[in-house]
Amino acid sequence: MTVSRPPRIGRVVESALYVDDLPRARDFYVNVLGGRVLLDTPRLAALDIAGESVLLLFRRGETLAPLETAGGTVPPHGAEGVQHLAFAIAAADTAQWEEHLGRSGVAIESRVRWPRGGESLYLRDPEGHSVELITPGLWATY
Amino acid sequence: MTVSRPPRIGRVVESALYVDDLPRARDFYVNVLGGRVLLDTPRLAALDIAGESVLLLFRRGETLAPLETAGGTVPPHGAEGVQHLAFAIAAADTAQWEEHLGRSGVAIESRVRWPRGGESLYLRDPEGHSVELITPGLWATY
Repeated sequence: MTVSRPPRIGRVVESALYVDDLPRARDFYVNVLGGRVLLDTPRLAALDIAGESVLLLFRRGETLAPLETAGGTVPPHGAEGVQHLAFAIAAADTAQWEEHLGRSGVAIESRVRWPRGGESLYLRDPEGHSVELITPGLWATY
Repeated sequence: MTVSRPPRIGRVVESALYVDDLPRARDFYVNVLGGRVLLDTPRLAALDIAGESVLLLFRRGETLAPLETAGGTVPPHGAEGVQHLAFAIAAADTAQWEEHLGRSGVAIESRVRWPRGGESLYLRDPEGHSVELITPGLWATY
């Protein structure tokens, strides 16, 4: 039990996925989902998402040792398996997203209508990660 | 190569971590990081982060089968290992965060000053996931 109140936290600014084929994953998040490359190395692609989030695509196995930089040490991390991320889309764009995914050869795995409102389209990135495109309504805050 | 242009993508609205001890992880993200509980089930805790992000804490193993809901099927996912997330903090709050983490018994594993500006504090959640608190500057967009 903590007795200290946290200062104000800000949003999740970086989310990370671990991938086997980094160029393929990067191209998917750029061409299919509209991310913009901020950084592109053999270890890591960082993509700007809507100017508000940074999606980090780490080549699996490349983050398991501490990374020494001029400004300090980046601690190790690294995961296996199938992760989940959801991206916000506008309800009015749902049909356009369906068309775009179809033209891009990306199957819609499932659709969910949420009791409180909002709809989700589920698809898979080339690594098999579960990607959700969600319209406002599910969460009180979104 | 896709020949279709994506509609406008929004920010990453849900990020997911997989945890062994869900109540312990939930308490950490509420008490130490300032998340707010939106949903709390044996399978999943959903936390509002700053009114802008939803952090999903999934009990490991509970998401490996499709979940049937009245509105459709939520596809399976699930990961093992040590994931990474970064939360935005204000540069002016860095000292307060250090004090708060200390009072909460959470060690600062590392600090990094980034060449383009911004500073990161790295810590571990109770599951060992690598949590970063980052001040503006590292990314052109943040």
